[in-house]
Amino acid sequence: MRGIALVTDFGDQGPYVGQMELCLTERAPQAQVTRLISDLPPFRPDLAAYLLPALARDVAGPMLYLCVVDPSVGGERGVLAVEADGNWFVGPDNGLMALVVRRAAQRRVLRVTWRPRQMSASFHGRDMLAPVAAMLFNGERVDGEEIGVGEMAGNDSPQDRRCIIYGDRYGNLLTGLRAGQLDRRTTIQAGPNVLRFARTFCEVPSGTAFWYEDAFGLVELAVNQGRADQLLGLGPGDGITPLVSA
Amino acid sequence: MRGIALVTDFGDQGPYVGQMELCLTERAPQAQVTRLISDLPPFRPDLAAYLLPALARDVAGPMLYLCVVDPSVGGERGVLAVEADGNWFVGPDNGLMALVVRRAAQRRVLRVTWRPRQMSASFHGRDMLAPVAAMLFNGERVDGEEIGVGEMAGNDSPQDRRCIIYGDRYGNLLTGLRAGQLDRRTTIQAGPNVLRFARTFCEVPSGTAFWYEDAFGLVELAVNQGRADQLLGLGPGDGITPLVSA
Amino acid sequence: MRGIALVTDFGDQGPYVGQMELCLTERAPQAQVTRLISDLPPFRPDLAAYLLPALARDVAGPMLYLCVVDPSVGGERGVLAVEADGNWFVGPDNGLMALVVRRAAQRRVLRVTWRPRQMSASFHGRDMLAPVAAMLFNGERVDGEEIGVGEMAGNDSPQDRRCIIYGDRYGNLLTGLRAGQLDRRTTIQAGPNVLRFARTFCEVPSGTAFWYEDAFGLVELAVNQGRADQLLGLGPGDGITPLVSA
Repeated sequence: MRGIALVTDFGDQGPYVGQMELCLTERAPQAQVTRLISDLPPFRPDLAAYLLPALARDVAGPMLYLCVVDPSVGGERGVLAVEADGNWFVGPDNGLMALVVRRAAQRRVLRVTWRPRQMSASFHGRDMLAPVAAMLFNGERVDGEEIGVGEMAGNDSPQDRRCIIYGDRYGNLLTGLRAGQLDRRTTIQAGPNVLRFARTFCEVPSGTAFWYEDAFGLVELAVNQGRADQLLGLGPGDGITPLVSA
Repeated sequence: MRGIALVTDFGDQGPYVGQMELCLTERAPQAQVTRLISDLPPFRPDLAAYLLPALARDVAGPMLYLCVVDPSVGGERGVLAVEADGNWFVGPDNGLMALVVRRAAQRRVLRVTWRPRQMSASFHGRDMLAPVAAMLFNGERVDGEEIGVGEMAGNDSPQDRRCIIYGDRYGNLLTGLRAGQLDRRTTIQAGPNVLRFARTFCEVPSGTAFWYEDAFGLVELAVNQGRADQLLGLGPGDGITPLVSA
Repeated sequence: MRGIALVTDFGDQGPYVGQMELCLTERAPQAQVTRLISDLPPFRPDLAAYLLPALARDVAGPMLYLCVVDPSVGGERGVLAVEADGNWFVGPDNGLMALVVRRAAQRRVLRVTWRPRQMSASFHGRDMLAPVAAMLFNGERVDGEEIGVGEMAGNDSPQDRRCIIYGDRYGNLLTGLRAGQLDRRTTIQAGPNVLRFARTFCEVPSGTAFWYEDAFGLVELAVNQGRADQLLGLGPGDGITPLVSA
């Protein structure tokens, strides 16, 4: 395993990512730890589920992804450690890792039964998920039981999702649709607007909204020299519709 | 010493944390440097003082904490290097490290007299505090004089503080009260609202404000599936009152 | 080379900086990678050009700076690898590195002709610039042709620029003027306001705007215990005028 990547909705604000890193550097001192993304839409594992495989697609493996979008922390949801096409993913069993698993050719799902001696009610990312990630990175045994893919939360999620899953600093809107699944003649209805495909920003006039295949392989809505979030009035969770031309 | 953790009010914005890191990696190349928290309330060492020991509580030591909340930079405040229960803390003598020292069983306070050859008027974090941290990490001697705890700024701060000290991304409000000091039947008055204890979010109805013991051992005000900062209309510096039931 | 510093307008939000880091740790595993600054004004290489040499000035070299402010990504702009006074800078040929080169005593400009096997339309920072940076860090040969300084974009930029180039978390306004070029009796006109020099914050009354030499050697506009951006109503791109007293 060449490193551990952190994928969370904690924000760069606060001590949450920092405390997870300090736990990892204590328990897996050999691991190179990288903050891959910290500002996933809060409390929406159903959206992050479609970004996670897109983010991992172009990162050289084998990597361990420590994934925390966990609205039900303190409740009864389980913890999973998933091996998918050579990478490992550790996170709550709430659908966050459903698409990574569904799209993998080779996969194995472990429901983790190991529990730390002490665990806060609200920060399992530090107290449970980071220690599990460190153990896996170190090649140590993690107590758990292998389960079938059908037993994971979110196992019935669609392969693509027709909505905005993330908005970036520039106002670009990433969607849950893989661009490789769409013909370039497809248009995307987003609110009252219908967007055509362009290869990149400078192929459309300034101020024009369009869709393109972004660097993660997703359909992304953008505006040349403008903000798609403001022009289209859309954000994470809002639906979109691909329209096939006759 | 296993690493250096950065605790600042610089924000993740800007080049300030990055330049401190580059100074540390130059002078203490063996140190693992972690951004623990960068968005402490600006210019409020009196509030950060209560978060610092809470953040360090569950981090495995020995660590060096480089602490910069420094509204009087350029003025005459001194610089301290503090050893407290096996960890080191380097920062300005403005109360920021007062509670770490007051609560430690074993402590030693060094007023640093070493000065760099060149020092900007406004960025002592980079020019003075980071080099001192690197020297301590390396086990090098730092010129200074040992002083009594009573000579530190903020040595008369109360052991707990009845106010909000930090608001996180989710709108949760951390307070200067240690939860271990309060009976669970205690209620917290926050503005006109009176909050009861709950172990965690899912134990109260959606939209209800409550207090709980957070992952740092502090009394934290929160709302299940909502934002405490907005519901209560409070932020860092605002007072709260624990009410003991008769 | 002792490390790689990332200088971008990506924001700390999103997966962009994280994916570049993961590319670097794959291809240059020996490199210590630091996020120097991530929130340069979006799409303004002409402003960032004046911050870059100021940021590098006090960082011990030799360092490699990976610089991404790239509004024309996907278009036809070239990629440069620049050696300037012992440091390397890799970035788009859009003026971003013009001042670093112009002010260097010893410099060499390479137009990179190497191209990756696969390249997204929108994220050359990850697909092209990071691999080039890794190759240079590793001492590997990078295909390219040496060009004259006069062939770089922005080679006619003025040595100093009379405008705001960056606003920080505290509301301080960094300018494109080097403080060493100005007499301390110079005043700065910023909108309708005229600001005098002070050595540091505590030398002026609370609420007063002034200019000072900041920790990067730049003229910076600030307000003691206040926000210059709000008091002056200015931000990145807005002009200022130094006034020489008679």
